Amino acid sequence: MNAKRAEPWEVREWLNTEHSISLESLCGKVILLEAFQMLCPGCVAHALPQAMRVRNLFSPDDVAVIGLHTVFEHHEAQGPRAALEAFLHEYRISFPVGIDAPSANGRLPKTMAAYGMQGTPTTILIDPEGHIRKHKFGREEDLVLGAEIMALLREKPAVMGSEGRDTSERCTDEGCPV
Amino acid sequence: MNAKRAEPWEVREWLNTEHSISLESLCGKVILLEAFQMLCPGCVAHALPQAMRVRNLFSPDDVAVIGLHTVFEHHEAQGPRAALEAFLHEYRISFPVGIDAPSANGRLPKTMAAYGMQGTPTTILIDPEGHIRKHKFGREEDLVLGAEIMALLREKPAVMGSEGRDTSERCTDEGCPV
Amino acid sequence: MNAKRAEPWEVREWLNTEHSISLESLCGKVILLEAFQMLCPGCVAHALPQAMRVRNLFSPDDVAVIGLHTVFEHHEAQGPRAALEAFLHEYRISFPVGIDAPSANGRLPKTMAAYGMQGTPTTILIDPEGHIRKHKFGREEDLVLGAEIMALLREKPAVMGSEGRDTSERCTDEGCPV
Amino acid sequence: MNAKRAEPWEVREWLNTEHSISLESLCGKVILLEAFQMLCPGCVAHALPQAMRVRNLFSPDDVAVIGLHTVFEHHEAQGPRAALEAFLHEYRISFPVGIDAPSANGRLPKTMAAYGMQGTPTTILIDPEGHIRKHKFGREEDLVLGAEIMALLREKPAVMGSEGRDTSERCTDEGCPV
Repeated sequence: MNAKRAEPWEVREWLNTEHSISLESLCGKVILLEAFQMLCPGCVAHALPQAMRVRNLFSPDDVAVIGLHTVFEHHEAQGPRAALEAFLHEYRISFPVGIDAPSANGRLPKTMAAYGMQGTPTTILIDPEGHIRKHKFGREEDLVLGAEIMALLREKPAVMGSEGRDTSERCTDEGCPV
Repeated sequence: MNAKRAEPWEVREWLNTEHSISLESLCGKVILLEAFQMLCPGCVAHALPQAMRVRNLFSPDDVAVIGLHTVFEHHEAQGPRAALEAFLHEYRISFPVGIDAPSANGRLPKTMAAYGMQGTPTTILIDPEGHIRKHKFGREEDLVLGAEIMALLREKPAVMGSEGRDTSERCTDEGCPV
Repeated sequence: MNAKRAEPWEVREWLNTEHSISLESLCGKVILLEAFQMLCPGCVAHALPQAMRVRNLFSPDDVAVIGLHTVFEHHEAQGPRAALEAFLHEYRISFPVGIDAPSANGRLPKTMAAYGMQGTPTTILIDPEGHIRKHKFGREEDLVLGAEIMALLREKPAVMGSEGRDTSERCTDEGCPV
Repeated sequence: MNAKRAEPWEVREWLNTEHSISLESLCGKVILLEAFQMLCPGCVAHALPQAMRVRNLFSPDDVAVIGLHTVFEHHEAQGPRAALEAFLHEYRISFPVGIDAPSANGRLPKTMAAYGMQGTPTTILIDPEGHIRKHKFGREEDLVLGAEIMALLREKPAVMGSEGRDTSERCTDEGCPV
């Protein structure tokens, strides 16, 4: 497999979580990263409700659902943390959401640029070893997403012969191994 | 008919229109007043698209569709004009929208309070003489709303025997008569 | 107004009613005639639920909702009365439904042919004097249909100056007058 | 695993296939068995479109989608093969459909009774070894079904240590092994 490693997230601040979240801290889990803007109709109508369904279906021990607020337009409108807080409250979005860090001299925020996202919503699946396995701009069907997440959950690390996935050793000391 | 006269609108500023809009300036037309908040899921999913359908179906000479942004929670988040502008742009809402004037010492903005609204969305129909003929909090069916608007359009003013509605005389000189 | 008079219905048998129904027997009411086939997906998903909403919204004294089963394909499959009965039961369609009479030597049943219908669903509105005022093949929006029905309800017969519509005299003795 | 073995299908006749289909002939594949009635609204609106999405998403080498027409009410109406043929044509359902064999002296057809189904729609997943792994009466979410099918696809037969699933040997000679 030649999947690309996921770039680190550059997040200005986090909502819906007491601690900052990093790729490393989620090592061993499948990650659904949902990049959105609160003023993006397709995000509000489809991608965010879908991400909540993923969160409700899978165990948080297996799948981490993370939102990324990637403001690349209407900065003034979508900028304030209070606006995003109110939005998450009203739409009952309870998974952690990071605000993508603005770039010094560019339109796209840093993580969005590093991942080469084309817009919002963008749905990204990262496998337990930290590789990007899906990157889709626009709407995805539930049937497809459910199957893809389960496929990642059922992969066995090549180096391990045992039934269970033992990620504790690999992840604790050194982060997700390359 | 003992319908209540519609209270004047107290609007801080208007979007999607070059001029301020008053009840009087719409005298002679049926008015659909849609009170909403941009962070209210029911407004975004149902009431605002419905108001756009009304605008697209009826002639602007007959029916005026007016939005009223009645921020009664998350003031900081929904407050700035720039946020509402971006929202209207992204959701392609093209009818005039007034920002309800905040009250000096209360939670509810002024027009919302004057109309006794219970929340958002609230759909209000005002007849060509300026009386409130419908006041509904929550979701309304398209079939019902279509029938109600047409019923108001087809009313004949009590004082007039002729076929057509001649509102020019009543409205030009004195505004909507009390 | 030069609207065409509605042709008489040629119905083999009626369901959901104890008596046969004719245009004349509905004189003075607005009629929504919904032509459908039980194996037509657009009828099942949209037109028939919409017709039920019309029936539930308006008074039966004002608006008569009538189904017409116009089988023009899959005759063997859709033919038996028992199949249609079961269909109406399962989908909770409670308005009267007539089975359009098969033609002697043609594909289209008689009423469908007489009305020049292009297929199913076809939604037809007939005014209280028996004229066809709407004839639409395919899907119609609720907002449009609600407004159109109300417009017909609020028409005043040209010959009458009084407020109410007095159809009893015109309709009892001679059927709907031409 | 103590999953129950799937009972053989007792089918009167097959549509959308040139040959009869048995559990044995599908050995080695995950099977989605969708029990439905053509006059069941939940089947028409949800279960059958969902089964078509499953058919379109997965390779037919991996997942077999099979319909089972289990008429337990309105026998006369739903009975004739011609009616079901027309239904499948109009709704563009292209997977094989078996007509469940009527029982000699009972209301439920034979396969429906053998599987202990409570009604329609019933969605059943059978694993490549012929065991029932899901049995659900009523509506199922796409996200859940997608994940469940993929989980079955990614199971490794207990007796095999190799990466790929070699079902040819087990299935060809002896059918699905008990």
